[in-house]
Amino acid sequence: MKYSNELLLLGKEAKEAAKVLASLDSEDRNRSLYKIAENLMVNKEQILIANKKDCEEAISNRLDDSLIDRIYLDDKRLSDISKDVITIAELPDPLDEIFDIKSLPNGLRIEKRRVPLGVIGAIYENRPNVTVDFSALCIKSGNSVILRGGKEGILTNIALSGLIRDSLVDTGVNKNIIQIVKSTNRDLVNQMLNMKDYIDLIIPRGGSKLVNMVANESRIPAITGGIGVCHVYVDEYADIDMAISIVNNAKVNRPSVCNAMDTLLINKKIYQELLPKIANVLFESGVEIRCDERAFNILKGHNSNLVVKANEDDWGMEFLSLIASVKIVDSIQDALKHIEEFGSGHTEAIITNNSYSSDKFLNEVDASAVMVNASTRFNDGGQFGLGAEVAISTNKIHARGPMGLRELTSYKWIVIGDGQIRA
Amino acid sequence: MKYSNELLLLGKEAKEAAKVLASLDSEDRNRSLYKIAENLMVNKEQILIANKKDCEEAISNRLDDSLIDRIYLDDKRLSDISKDVITIAELPDPLDEIFDIKSLPNGLRIEKRRVPLGVIGAIYENRPNVTVDFSALCIKSGNSVILRGGKEGILTNIALSGLIRDSLVDTGVNKNIIQIVKSTNRDLVNQMLNMKDYIDLIIPRGGSKLVNMVANESRIPAITGGIGVCHVYVDEYADIDMAISIVNNAKVNRPSVCNAMDTLLINKKIYQELLPKIANVLFESGVEIRCDERAFNILKGHNSNLVVKANEDDWGMEFLSLIASVKIVDSIQDALKHIEEFGSGHTEAIITNNSYSSDKFLNEVDASAVMVNASTRFNDGGQFGLGAEVAISTNKIHARGPMGLRELTSYKWIVIGDGQIRA
Repeated sequence: MKYSNELLLLGKEAKEAAKVLASLDSEDRNRSLYKIAENLMVNKEQILIANKKDCEEAISNRLDDSLIDRIYLDDKRLSDISKDVITIAELPDPLDEIFDIKSLPNGLRIEKRRVPLGVIGAIYENRPNVTVDFSALCIKSGNSVILRGGKEGILTNIALSGLIRDSLVDTGVNKNIIQIVKSTNRDLVNQMLNMKDYIDLIIPRGGSKLVNMVANESRIPAITGGIGVCHVYVDEYADIDMAISIVNNAKVNRPSVCNAMDTLLINKKIYQELLPKIANVLFESGVEIRCDERAFNILKGHNSNLVVKANEDDWGMEFLSLIASVKIVDSIQDALKHIEEFGSGHTEAIITNNSYSSDKFLNEVDASAVMVNASTRFNDGGQFGLGAEVAISTNKIHARGPMGLRELTSYKWIVIGDGQIRA
Repeated sequence: MKYSNELLLLGKEAKEAAKVLASLDSEDRNRSLYKIAENLMVNKEQILIANKKDCEEAISNRLDDSLIDRIYLDDKRLSDISKDVITIAELPDPLDEIFDIKSLPNGLRIEKRRVPLGVIGAIYENRPNVTVDFSALCIKSGNSVILRGGKEGILTNIALSGLIRDSLVDTGVNKNIIQIVKSTNRDLVNQMLNMKDYIDLIIPRGGSKLVNMVANESRIPAITGGIGVCHVYVDEYADIDMAISIVNNAKVNRPSVCNAMDTLLINKKIYQELLPKIANVLFESGVEIRCDERAFNILKGHNSNLVVKANEDDWGMEFLSLIASVKIVDSIQDALKHIEEFGSGHTEAIITNNSYSSDKFLNEVDASAVMVNASTRFNDGGQFGLGAEVAISTNKIHARGPMGLRELTSYKWIVIGDGQIRA
């Protein structure tokens, strides 16, 4: 494949700079992060001016209000972004780890040392905070990053990455660890996905269309994350109040994110009692319920605006909004079958007080997180105590589930001898 | 991409069977392995008959003797293959592991449980032992495998996989976890490398041509392994006798494998004393030495048959035979630069008694194993105590260095609550 000169130069610079970064100690990397946080406050005017141009361009192109809101920055948002950088600086150093230490019978001492991956390729949509977030996570973990954000926020992203590069220079670190693709030509995304010699891992951040495109097209290992078709199965042995509370939380706490519940599965032995109670709670938040036949027959009189019949597309759908599909299942076996067919391997939960059911569910469900009696919303790096989160991976290779800083690293084997040779 | 019906069926069957396998306990999987080992002895005639046909075909096609030797089986070789299966059966169960256990302040208990990857795609050349080896490793680690061996051993491989599948049936395990591609059409390899929906990880085993082809073409995560351009750098602070012993072992112990030394780098301060001594030892095994200018000037009178001038291709060359290139470097910095330019990220060693040199080398060399005062030949799953070895990965994603059974697994996050919801 032929690469654009811009991309090739970024790749070479990023790779070269990564070597230097890997040898910096924790304090050096943190000093740069604090400087970035500071400069985001000191130089906020230049960022806001660039952002204003992006927003005006978006308005003149009649983009959706929701898209414009995603691009938009103000003092408060910039201040939050700056605070996030400090939060990342204060996390433990992922590179400060030696593990699997062994002494062999022949006297060799072996261990693994955590090292950066090298160069991360970040392909994302329009939120400018992602530019800063990825940069900070990569600096902290000793990686270079090549940033490729959406064209609607390009001026903001160029301003932000410029500020970050200046902050690196201020603290004596090679600025080339942060690279931004300035051309908005879409071909460059395809080229990035082929640059095996320059990029070690691709992380897409955005909607399922972007993530699936990257998963299908990339010749570099790529994280598939953030697509969550999440089920909650309420077993016949569930505590009714707990089920209502968890289902409600899983659906309405933050419906626009990947770990929100999409489909509720209820055991046939309890649905007649449970479903109306759950529905009444969900209706209070305006949740539309798309029902299979048995569920519809129970709910049809309850709230004509919010109760509709499900069609085939409603199973396996990531709603990302106040909509849930509901299906009544004959057994845990049927629930497992449905999850296997329609789940995306993200987060699946069972509500039950029966250990046979919970063990079966934990053993048989193949997903990044499998939960008993807890809200799907907990599948999150922050909630799991990882600090910052790069993505929630639904891959099985390299890292699965919430990916923190450690998942942006590899390791090397260290072997210390005093003259050992192999027999 | 369009897939052949054969491959699509194998893929579907393997994926379906993997689910069943994942739920078998350690004893069930081991029982199948012991049965395979037994059947390899009981039914050896049928294997040897198939192998004889492959060998005759290879002879009539005038293939190289070395290639025919790789295909060839006899009682002794089959017996060794059978013993290897028992060795794998007796390793600890990689799936019997729960780790990163935490209790969160909100009362949630989280942990990671090791799970199989799913379906492994094995693409390899002609040694029939690889068919049995991969099958046994995948059964042990709970994975299905789709085997695609070289066409020269196809009848042997079909017989071996048939015997393995029969052994699974004998022990009540779904035979579809072991799948062999019977068509020798090369297009099927390309198709395999695209079957993301059916294969979770591709492992190539063979020469660098095969491995590089897979690395470049695969859209499924693939292990790049087994290509080792390995250097030994003898520092000015080296113990001379230790240097001679390690260099000799690294080169001649088993020259045909990936962790053998290819290039010897010697510090200019000691080469005049050291090089003739090392060369004399290497000459005893018939090692050809390809010398840079300074090395040539020292050695030119010593052994005219085995001393030649190096050309540019001799740096970064994996010789896989009794050949070594030798370069005199001005400093450790020059050695590191050479390794960075010409190494393949496999195994690099320094001989030194100086801690500044060894620390610098360990920190700066980017390879799967970095060694001080030990032979490169130790970079090996067996030597590192992993038991069986699938490959020596030079990837940084997922696993690096010797890959044992654990590296054929992923994990899932388990979350146990008693009604927790997210605030």
